[in-house]
Order: sequence, then structure tokens, then C-alpha cells
Amino acid sequence: MTQTSPDGLRPFLAMDILKRAKVLEGQGRTICHLEVGEPGQPPAPRVLEAVARALPQPQGYTNAKGLTALREALARYYADQHRVAVDPEMILATMGSSAGFILTFHTAFQPGARIAITRPGYPAYINTLIGLGFDYAEIPVRAENNWHLTGADIEAAYREQPFEGLLFASPANPTGAAVDRAQLAVIVATCARLGVQFISDEIYHGLDYRGPSVSALELTGDAVVINSFSKYYCMTGWRIGWMVLPQRLIRRAEILQQNLFISAPTLSQIAATVALGERDYAEEQKASYARNRVLLAEGLRGLGFDLAEAGDGAFYAYAGISRFSNDSLAFCETMLDQAGVAATPGVDFDRVGGDGYVRFSFAGRRQTVEEALERLQGFLGTGRSF
Amino acid sequence: MTQTSPDGLRPFLAMDILKRAKVLEGQGRTICHLEVGEPGQPPAPRVLEAVARALPQPQGYTNAKGLTALREALARYYADQHRVAVDPEMILATMGSSAGFILTFHTAFQPGARIAITRPGYPAYINTLIGLGFDYAEIPVRAENNWHLTGADIEAAYREQPFEGLLFASPANPTGAAVDRAQLAVIVATCARLGVQFISDEIYHGLDYRGPSVSALELTGDAVVINSFSKYYCMTGWRIGWMVLPQRLIRRAEILQQNLFISAPTLSQIAATVALGERDYAEEQKASYARNRVLLAEGLRGLGFDLAEAGDGAFYAYAGISRFSNDSLAFCETMLDQAGVAATPGVDFDRVGGDGYVRFSFAGRRQTVEEALERLQGFLGTGRSF
Repeated sequence: MTQTSPDGLRPFLAMDILKRAKVLEGQGRTICHLEVGEPGQPPAPRVLEAVARALPQPQGYTNAKGLTALREALARYYADQHRVAVDPEMILATMGSSAGFILTFHTAFQPGARIAITRPGYPAYINTLIGLGFDYAEIPVRAENNWHLTGADIEAAYREQPFEGLLFASPANPTGAAVDRAQLAVIVATCARLGVQFISDEIYHGLDYRGPSVSALELTGDAVVINSFSKYYCMTGWRIGWMVLPQRLIRRAEILQQNLFISAPTLSQIAATVALGERDYAEEQKASYARNRVLLAEGLRGLGFDLAEAGDGAFYAYAGISRFSNDSLAFCETMLDQAGVAATPGVDFDRVGGDGYVRFSFAGRRQTVEEALERLQGFLGTGRSF
Repeated sequence: MTQTSPDGLRPFLAMDILKRAKVLEGQGRTICHLEVGEPGQPPAPRVLEAVARALPQPQGYTNAKGLTALREALARYYADQHRVAVDPEMILATMGSSAGFILTFHTAFQPGARIAITRPGYPAYINTLIGLGFDYAEIPVRAENNWHLTGADIEAAYREQPFEGLLFASPANPTGAAVDRAQLAVIVATCARLGVQFISDEIYHGLDYRGPSVSALELTGDAVVINSFSKYYCMTGWRIGWMVLPQRLIRRAEILQQNLFISAPTLSQIAATVALGERDYAEEQKASYARNRVLLAEGLRGLGFDLAEAGDGAFYAYAGISRFSNDSLAFCETMLDQAGVAATPGVDFDRVGGDGYVRFSFAGRRQTVEEALERLQGFLGTGRSF
């Protein structure tokens, strides 16, 4: 089922491409992995040392909200990085941001409620909403506006079809678009005026190449904030994230966590607690993404991809392929099979206009980006059409 | 909110008791933990060695279904333990059985569908169903029948109020009741006749004190099977389980997994793969539970609890408290505060008749059970009422 199921559920094509890539690797091919947003490095050494020390003890369930030490460290993170006082009791450790979305939807809304998201956007947003029995509204953002979401965009979409929540990521996947404080303040104020629950997906925080990321918590006490250790702290497979909830929602979220998940993985919670103190290591990784970001953007432009400028944050280039193809999935499949370069078709992120785009991740090593660009040169240089 | 929310959602009291117990421990008290179903031992040494070896590598996402090595090892487990051929492609590694339930409900049913469960039963069943927007029907099982579910029970409940699925655990939480092959065959056949999707919760498999556990897979290719490494393999906090699905459901389950969870924790998948080969270690733990089982049942009976016989499997004693109290939550709170013994109120498992019961877990160390019985002697011996 690459196609859409009757209820609109679609596979996450990035994962399908990853699976296909692993099959090719099993056949002895080498693949440049630019399809999944995964750092190429492990977590900081002190994180691994702490995990190794904890291993011999039984790792039982923690309390549902998560280890107190982790939630206190997160409160310090908000004080230090964002100058915001957050009560550790309003923080809940989750099994990645994935579980955070499930908890948020079922905590803040009734089943069937309509949640707005941007298009393009993270594909799991739509699929999770559909899969869990919610409705969604899409707010288009445009390349001409550097994929930024504005208050006017929200108002226009709301007038067309009202929604009860807005789930918004900055920096965003797949475009890397990040709003500044003034832009975020407008979004928050617009939601408040419309009576829309604002959900701030901050999982790419820290990976903003233009200055410090701005948390919704700096602007309002009424947002649900979702974050994760996956990206900035290099912990994707550890499946550990967190939420910050308003007082009125925290108890329901805790009860849902107890029942739906019990608690987040204990070793990952221990690792996360230490990771928060290892920002120097995280900043080293970021510096390497920053170099890849320029290298990839320039390389893709040179090859004929449409890419006005590199994204503000995250580690993706969302590049137009109009010169080569109008079928992003076929393009990605051919690129994988023939050039051994794995990237994600734009239709994953935008069911309307995504056929004209491909998302390349530059979270890996510099050599991977270099090798991919070299392979693409050979692949695209032959002048073939797709 | 210890009370029920408007939609019927209730806290998982075992987790609330655990939380309260941890507060008391923070104040310097020592608590006998008999409230949560957690083995007192870490996983087998070779499991920990494998994790330590893997630590220095980046632990990225796996493919959504899980590591091939893990799914192949699980297929071998079914061949060896259950004499059943299972295609690794029909297996999906999950974030504990918790994620398995979410995936099952949304894979096999439409939102709002009614799923039957036993009463008493695992409280997260009802709360997860309610929390996700499903309906539920309860099938009462009775102490006089050793808490066993029969085909007649299912038919009677179905006639009263039809349901689309039956979620059934053997061995069961909180009663330990386990069906034998003939009993399970009747349950499977009854579901087939009624057109009810059978979901077999097998997370206590291996912990059957009367003989080998019988998997639904031995009897039908149409069940959804949910299992976990938490109990038999001592890996609760690792949050790793698995599902086996019929062919007609596997692709939808995989897509939901991609979007709702991405993949199960990678280190836990590595650990689980090794754990499957360490059944000797697991059997040692089981032997210790078996000793605790007798000790606790005899001790509780001696103190005046109603407990006809020890459960068939799992590691719980579901003991009647009619001699002491008709309010299981108040009884458990007082027992925790005054005697430092944490156990779970029966109302967690049975909203109708559970006030007459308390669940004690004997998964911990023998000394914990001995110490708890001694404390209860002092606590109950004073002849006070609750």
C-alpha cells in the first residue's frame, strides 16, 4: 500500500525509502542516506558513560511523568536557555515526540476535533491525526515567503474552515523554516484571538542557524509544547522526548500517559538527563550540520534543483525538482536504485504540491553529503528525464 | 483527579500508589513494593553485555517493524516454544505492549468500535479504549470459577451487547488466571463463530506455573497477538514488546507504527534479540516467583485475606479483603502510609466489585515478600477496622 487507504492514511514514505535502502545494502550496495532526519553521531560520551553505569541495575518503570531528575534538569534548561520558569510538575517525559503528539491530541481535544497544520509539513502529523480519528486542516505556506507561516495565513484558513488546534513546528520539517520572536508572537496571538489551542512542536530547537530558538513558553502559558532529544542531542533511536503542558491539562495527560504508555524508556530518561548538560557536544554537531547546510544547498543549486536559500534551521534542504521530474516518488525511487542516493519525495510532506520537491537531510557526515552530490552529478548529468 | 473524568477515564491507581510510595521513600521511609508488576532483577548478563557493546554506535531509528534479527529470533521462538511457523514479516516490534494495544485498536477497528475485556482485568485496557475514543464491554469472571473466562461467558455478554473484538490475557492480570489449550480453543472458536476479532494478550507467557503457556497462534491464524519482554525477560523499563498480526492487517499496522511511533527503542530491540536466547536465566527468575507465589498466598490466607488458591500464572495474588474493609483504595492508602506496604486497590481492575480486593505482586525479591507479610501482621493484627 503505497497508495492512500480509504480513510486517508498513507505510509510515511521516508520510512519506505529507508526500508528499500536497507534491502539494497543487504545486496552489497552502498547507499548515501539523506532520507531520514538522523544525526550521524552518537550522544555525548558522558551520556553513554551514565548509561553504562546504570546498566547493571534493574530498569523498572519510572513514575508516569518521568524521572524527577530529568524534569528538574528540563526546568533548568528552560530557565537557562529561555529565561522562563517552568514547574517540573508541568513536564512529562514521553516516548519520543511521537507519543507526545498522541498524548496532546487526546488530552487537549475530543476525538474528531480538527487540528490545523502547515502544508508542507511533517507527514506523521496528518497520518497520526487520521489514524487516531481526528480531522485536520492544512494551511499552505509558500516558497516565495521562505515557507514561513503568518497570522494572515492562519486567519484565512480559519475563515474557510474553523479548527480547534494549531500544531506548528519551528524550525520546520521539511523546509527548515523558522520564525523569529515577533513572528511567533503573532501566531500565538492569532490562536488566542480565534480560541485555537496552540501546540508548539519544538523538536528542532537548538538547530536554528540564525540565532537562539524561541520557545512558545516565552510568549504564553497556554501552549502545549512538544520537544525531543532526538535531533539536537543525537538520540533518535532512544525514543525520548518531553512535553510541557498548561496546568489545566497536566493531570489528564499524566493519566493518559499511565494508561497508554506507562512511562518512557528508563535508560533513555537517564541518558536524556545527562544530555541536557552536554550542550557543548551538541553545538559541535550543529557546527557540522551548518557546514553541510551550505555545501548541500550550493551543490543542489549547481545541479539544477530549485532552492532559493538554505533553510533557517533543522537539517533539511527542501529542493524543487521541476527541471527533472513532476513525480517526486518516481524520482526518488530511481535516484535510489540508480545513484544509491536515498532522499524523501515531497509528496510525503505535501499531498498537493509535493510532487515538485524532494527533501534531502544533511544531518549525516560531510563525506555523505559530498558523495551524494558527486553521485547526483553523474545521475543527473546524463540529461535523462524521469 | 483520583475520580473518574466525564468520559470515564480513570487514573491507573497502581501508578498513583507507586508515586506516593516514592514520595515516602524520599522522606526516608522504606517501602515494600508489591504494587507494580515488576521483576526485581535486571535482564540476563549477556543482554547487558550486548547493550554495552552497542552503546558507542549511533542508535538510529530501525525500520518501523523492527530489527530483522529481532523478528527472526521471534520467529524461532514461536517455532521452538510453540511449534508454530510465523513469518518474521508478520511481526512488529513495539514500544512495550502499551504501543501494541494502541496499534491493535486502530489497525483492526474503526474509532468507536466496542471491544470486550474481562472484569477484573488490566485497568489500562478500559482507559486506553476510552482515551482513544473506543467503547468497551465487560465480561465478568468469578472467583468461584478461579477467574477463568468461558465460551458461555462470552456468548452471554455478546447477546446482551454485541462487540467487535475481544481482548483477553492468559495468564491474566490481576488474577493470574490462565486457560489451558482446550479452554483457549473454546474462546477462539466462540469469537470466530460470533465474528469477533480475537486479540490475545500474551505478555505473561512463560510465567505459567502449571505447564507451558499456549499461544493463540497455535490455534488460529486470525488472532492479533500482543506480547512483551517486560515480565518474563525482566525488561519493564526498557519498553519493548511485539505483535504478531494476520496478513490482512500487517501493512496497516506497519503504516500506523511508522507514523505513530516511528520505531521501538533501538537499544531495547538489541537487548530483546539477545534476551530470547537467555531463557535459562528467565526460568531462574520464574523459579523464584514460584517460591514467592506459595509464600505470599499462604501468608495472606494466614492473615485473613480471601484467597482460595494461588493464581495459575503471572506474579500476582488477587486477595479478598472483606474481613478488613469494603474500600480497597482507602485500605491500600492506609496500608502504605502506616505499614509501608504498597499494593494496588482492586478498584483499579474492577470498577464494580473491586472494592473487595487488593492485588499484591510477588515479582520482587523473597525478602520483600517476607518483610511485607511481617509488616502486615503488625498492621492487621491490631484488630482495627478501615
